[in-house]
Amino acid sequence: MSQHPVPATERFAARTAGMTASEIRALFAVASRPEVVSLAGGMPNLAALPMEELAAEVADLVAREGQVALQYGSAQGRPELREQICDVMAWEGIRADPDDVVVTVGSQMALDLVTRIYCDPGDVVLAEGPSYVGALGSFAAYQARVVHVAMDAHGLVPSLLRAALETVRPRPKFLYTVPTFHNPAGVTLSVERRAEVLAICRGYGVAVVEDNPYGLLGFSGQPYPALRSLDRDVVYLGSFSKTFASGLRVGWALVPPAVRDRLVLAAESATLCPPSFTQMLVSRYLAAHDWRSQVKTYTEAYRDRRDAMLRALETHLPPGCTWNVPDGGFLRVAHRARGRRHQGDAPARDLGPGGLRVGYGVLRRRAR
Amino acid sequence: MSQHPVPATERFAARTAGMTASEIRALFAVASRPEVVSLAGGMPNLAALPMEELAAEVADLVAREGQVALQYGSAQGRPELREQICDVMAWEGIRADPDDVVVTVGSQMALDLVTRIYCDPGDVVLAEGPSYVGALGSFAAYQARVVHVAMDAHGLVPSLLRAALETVRPRPKFLYTVPTFHNPAGVTLSVERRAEVLAICRGYGVAVVEDNPYGLLGFSGQPYPALRSLDRDVVYLGSFSKTFASGLRVGWALVPPAVRDRLVLAAESATLCPPSFTQMLVSRYLAAHDWRSQVKTYTEAYRDRRDAMLRALETHLPPGCTWNVPDGGFLRVAHRARGRRHQGDAPARDLGPGGLRVGYGVLRRRAR
Repeated sequence: MSQHPVPATERFAARTAGMTASEIRALFAVASRPEVVSLAGGMPNLAALPMEELAAEVADLVAREGQVALQYGSAQGRPELREQICDVMAWEGIRADPDDVVVTVGSQMALDLVTRIYCDPGDVVLAEGPSYVGALGSFAAYQARVVHVAMDAHGLVPSLLRAALETVRPRPKFLYTVPTFHNPAGVTLSVERRAEVLAICRGYGVAVVEDNPYGLLGFSGQPYPALRSLDRDVVYLGSFSKTFASGLRVGWALVPPAVRDRLVLAAESATLCPPSFTQMLVSRYLAAHDWRSQVKTYTEAYRDRRDAMLRALETHLPPGCTWNVPDGGFLRVAHRARGRRHQGDAPARDLGPGGLRVGYGVLRRRAR
Repeated sequence: MSQHPVPATERFAARTAGMTASEIRALFAVASRPEVVSLAGGMPNLAALPMEELAAEVADLVAREGQVALQYGSAQGRPELREQICDVMAWEGIRADPDDVVVTVGSQMALDLVTRIYCDPGDVVLAEGPSYVGALGSFAAYQARVVHVAMDAHGLVPSLLRAALETVRPRPKFLYTVPTFHNPAGVTLSVERRAEVLAICRGYGVAVVEDNPYGLLGFSGQPYPALRSLDRDVVYLGSFSKTFASGLRVGWALVPPAVRDRLVLAAESATLCPPSFTQMLVSRYLAAHDWRSQVKTYTEAYRDRRDAMLRALETHLPPGCTWNVPDGGFLRVAHRARGRRHQGDAPARDLGPGGLRVGYGVLRRRAR
């Protein structure tokens, strides 16, 4: 027997070396400081939920269907919920078959599994600059390399996307995009650019992964057409975390059939199956409550918050600052700042000269 | 632009090629056939749960604590539940700090993440032959190679473990073991061998991953000492799926501090956080109910089933068959069969001559 310089429990995989800091926890650590009003985390406004009705609903669920709700289910998720998810997606113009929906533990799990089935170490993922921090964590976990493509006020810039696809090698596995009410930039990909972005990716043989947790939270009432509504090959990720309740961790992926089978297998080795209990609670909520009105209530609260934030920015920020005016989603603020006082979650070098600098939207409460 | 022979959505990672068949679904497909009494899946006997009390509990949870239960939580899991988990583990002699517990979506997720942080493609995992099918799925997902070590009636055979560690290259990353009420073999690692197996692995610089979903379901009333109770470096996986309710998908890992930080980061990129809702329901159940009596009720039902099964085997199996008599856990049947009529989930070539042949315990109902 030889001596082993590294303890047996610390002989980690190469990928584990990339897991060095938690961006998400850094956000939440700031968010929990009492003097801070954080706009960083995507936490829904649960005060708007009908808690008494939900309490009665969940009690009935356990009393009548406890034998099913508390038992293992299928890896793909419950058929009833997958049908309801298709109804939800129809609001954004998506026509889908419940057979192509895979229920996951939040859309984070869907993104993690999509990365698992697509990315070998060293593979390239294209993403907006800046990108959602949770997505960057999943890409790092699979040792994928992220190449950022800059946005402007109308979202991802098609000419820059084309330039990246011409030059980046190896050919990217997919474009990861939050086209609608982008986190953290607050911008939305214009309707004109949607078809263009899809055509570019198709031309270069690169898949598109559309992450759309905020799509139903538009302030105008008229949803943007999801990329998936324009192209059935788009891998679409959805979530009830923003439109209902994040603590249930119910999200989903809608994928082409050839991808679905792989995704279900990956889901099975990840968690065996999503919790039956939370799925059935979401199903009952969707079936028994006017969830569209609930989403409208949420949305009105977020619009009020946006307006308050815009007034504060106009009053308090120094001259020379500009910002985006998001027309949906959770409030985030992006502004072109001079210097490097405001840093986003994408490395500045990826943004290019004149690129967006995105603050996490953290304002300090002023002493009164 | 060039033409691309593989559709963009099917440019999968190398690991995805290994995801070709679902062992778990094959099991459940057989289990759902009406003429089959399946002993294959580890489904708890939920009829023994106090559903009316649980219904009241969960209604109160939503009504009083809905703002927390339906909101995001921490990636590591709720502190209250992690403390309670330490109390549960104390029943098997484990002394643990709640800081070293990571709550997961079932222990399957814990196993998947442990494999993620340890295994590069081509790394070796040692495991009993045969092994739990769900574990094999996770190992395959990370392109780890599994080398099986045979068991006898007293569990893993130490001399064969030592032989494997002498010969297998690269040096295995860890031994994956279900020492107590093994799935699917039904055998238990004897108390004498526990220290021996730990000493062998320590000597060869190989970590030990103890998967222990059934440990509290012993028929004698006196639990076996968990491997983790003998060695603080053991990576321990636990679950409420067998002792309470599998549909909540609440499991955990107890790991050394240097492993914990990596595991939490891996969990964060996998699902952001486990559902607050299901964690709080488990916490309330543990706090308000006599869960030890509940486990005893479960265990008595499983003992009755074992006895019925043993009577059936004695009556109906042909001469020359022998079988193990499990003294805890869910009923599974292992028998030395002549020929290859009964196949387990480990490839026959890994079992060696005279090795165990393990049936999934599926009996056909006879026409009466």
